[in-house]
Amino acid sequence: MSNESRAEVLARLPLRDDLRGRTPYGAPQLDVPVRLNTNENSYDVPAEVAAAIVEAVRQEAGHLNRYPDREFTQLREDLANYLGHDLEADQIWAANGSNEVLQQLLQAFGGPGRTVLGFAPSYSMHPIITVGTGATWVDGKRGRAGQATDDPNQFDLHVAETVEQIERVKPAVTFLCSPNNPTGTALDLDVVKAAYDATDGIVIVDEAYTEFARTGTASALTLLPGRERLVVSRTMSKAFALAGARVGYLAADPAVTDAIRLVRLPYHLSSLTQAAARAALWHSDVLLDTVEAIKRDRDRIVTSVRELGLNPAPSDANFVLFGGLADEKALWRSLLSRGVLIRDVGLPGFLRVSAGTPEETTIFLDALADSLLDAPVTV
Amino acid sequence: MSNESRAEVLARLPLRDDLRGRTPYGAPQLDVPVRLNTNENSYDVPAEVAAAIVEAVRQEAGHLNRYPDREFTQLREDLANYLGHDLEADQIWAANGSNEVLQQLLQAFGGPGRTVLGFAPSYSMHPIITVGTGATWVDGKRGRAGQATDDPNQFDLHVAETVEQIERVKPAVTFLCSPNNPTGTALDLDVVKAAYDATDGIVIVDEAYTEFARTGTASALTLLPGRERLVVSRTMSKAFALAGARVGYLAADPAVTDAIRLVRLPYHLSSLTQAAARAALWHSDVLLDTVEAIKRDRDRIVTSVRELGLNPAPSDANFVLFGGLADEKALWRSLLSRGVLIRDVGLPGFLRVSAGTPEETTIFLDALADSLLDAPVTV
Repeated sequence: MSNESRAEVLARLPLRDDLRGRTPYGAPQLDVPVRLNTNENSYDVPAEVAAAIVEAVRQEAGHLNRYPDREFTQLREDLANYLGHDLEADQIWAANGSNEVLQQLLQAFGGPGRTVLGFAPSYSMHPIITVGTGATWVDGKRGRAGQATDDPNQFDLHVAETVEQIERVKPAVTFLCSPNNPTGTALDLDVVKAAYDATDGIVIVDEAYTEFARTGTASALTLLPGRERLVVSRTMSKAFALAGARVGYLAADPAVTDAIRLVRLPYHLSSLTQAAARAALWHSDVLLDTVEAIKRDRDRIVTSVRELGLNPAPSDANFVLFGGLADEKALWRSLLSRGVLIRDVGLPGFLRVSAGTPEETTIFLDALADSLLDAPVTV
Repeated sequence: MSNESRAEVLARLPLRDDLRGRTPYGAPQLDVPVRLNTNENSYDVPAEVAAAIVEAVRQEAGHLNRYPDREFTQLREDLANYLGHDLEADQIWAANGSNEVLQQLLQAFGGPGRTVLGFAPSYSMHPIITVGTGATWVDGKRGRAGQATDDPNQFDLHVAETVEQIERVKPAVTFLCSPNNPTGTALDLDVVKAAYDATDGIVIVDEAYTEFARTGTASALTLLPGRERLVVSRTMSKAFALAGARVGYLAADPAVTDAIRLVRLPYHLSSLTQAAARAALWHSDVLLDTVEAIKRDRDRIVTSVRELGLNPAPSDANFVLFGGLADEKALWRSLLSRGVLIRDVGLPGFLRVSAGTPEETTIFLDALADSLLDAPVTV
């Protein structure tokens, strides 16, 4: 429109002061042969599931002139049925990705004048959504005082340390994350129970990656009965290979969903989204077969990275955080030059890689070994 | 879960104080033969457009394991192409319904400590989204001092009165709405120009219904060059018969879209939404034929309602607001008992009806005539 730069115009626009100088959140979307940076499911949607989604959309397409079911009742029923644990549809809420679910929770229970606590490093959208809805974010700490920086369990949460931080900060909302992103390890449910008892606020357990957890890992869903302030959030982006459809959801007391109804935008979940999500849920057995394959490659990464002299955190997710890097940014660039995009999560000495297909995993591991040979970057 | 009511649990949850006692926004979703209450497009999506949407989704379905294009570049190009006026893709932003577009604008330019001005009666989501994002809402006034309550132009905005209110309130964001919902009349662009000149804040012109405007009505898009604080919002829910797909968008200076990038949730627009919206845009000629049919029934409602002794506002939309009712709630119930659902917009003496198909419009007009015969309710 003019020779003036967009940044110059933006500087003149009446933007909120707290947004000035910020940069948009988001991993680089680069066109690279092997993309292992956003914890996507590397497997295409299986043909029979894709066909079911198309058929479900076909049934809706002629009627898109009508607003969607604002209560997405059938989708809530299907999600409750998938989750099990005697959950009922009125305990379920869904939105366009778990990010929107979390934003709605924070609009209802956070906001100006309230404090939200999470334990860094964790999912980087938790503080962004908190601040974006007006609350104050407090970065809690993981691990134990004096723990060695090469201890693979340094990112675990423990009961005493968690309770102490909650009692000190008195958050309106506490974020837990299990398996934790970007560290990968699932949370001991004793920590969830203790955190809940230590606060009068809402406790959110973000279980985006829970379907990838190692055998025997229990979900916080088992803790819902009798805990009306506990919320367990989930997503269809990972295990269900549906990142492109943007479906996140939660399970909680029905009153929590009523609270969200006070802040949600009406008709937030499109008829297409509802239809596609339901079709995928009807094929959860096929989709969860893929999960088993991904877990095998995840475990292969943990083993191989350790054999390369690096330090992986125990993983219950579809990704592995590995440490022991003298210059993680150099290694990230070296891998990129070999066609492999992984994630610099901003933790000095660490990088995160998603478990892909066997082929992708092999390419990553070979590229990693080559990079380390070329220029040994471990500490 | 227990015998306790959800309301009792909700009362105990740590909900934000400003949400206590509120009820969720949303028109009744009743199963009634003729639904003319939410300004939906009564025409099904034409078969060829529905088929194109299904085909577009088919091409995405196998790859839904990948996150969508966070920048929805192709959709922005198609939207710019549809809008014309030499607009370019970097001036376009889209989200899940214009509600989300407006919410993002208010997150960037409104929020705590800021004031937002609109002119009641207007789209009821404007104040709800304003308050939901932490800003203070101020209800401006329409019409002129001393205007008769049966003046069909009583809801118009005028330059002097609009400027006076803006200069007094000093809003960070000013909402205009053209054609205005629920009154139906388009806005004189002189008012938009004067409003823009009277403020240092953002001016949003909500043009959700603009495709239905009477011949010769100009869009605020024509005012964008040289006005970096002006935003024109649109939707595909009405003219494009795509309410179920939830696609709203805006046109503005590229710097405005950069401001929104600071607050948007990453990947907020699903691959399915992007694909469906693009397929519909490729068939805009077919869809806009329907608009002409709806305008004919809209005009028929205006004429017929006036012949029944009622007082319709001039309409540039796919709905008609009509006044002169002694008891609008009784008439609403009487119509519902005849299988016709229209909208009580909370304006004493008025009701709003969407223009449907010719058959639906005839059923409404017959039911209205019957209701008035049964129990004359006009003042």
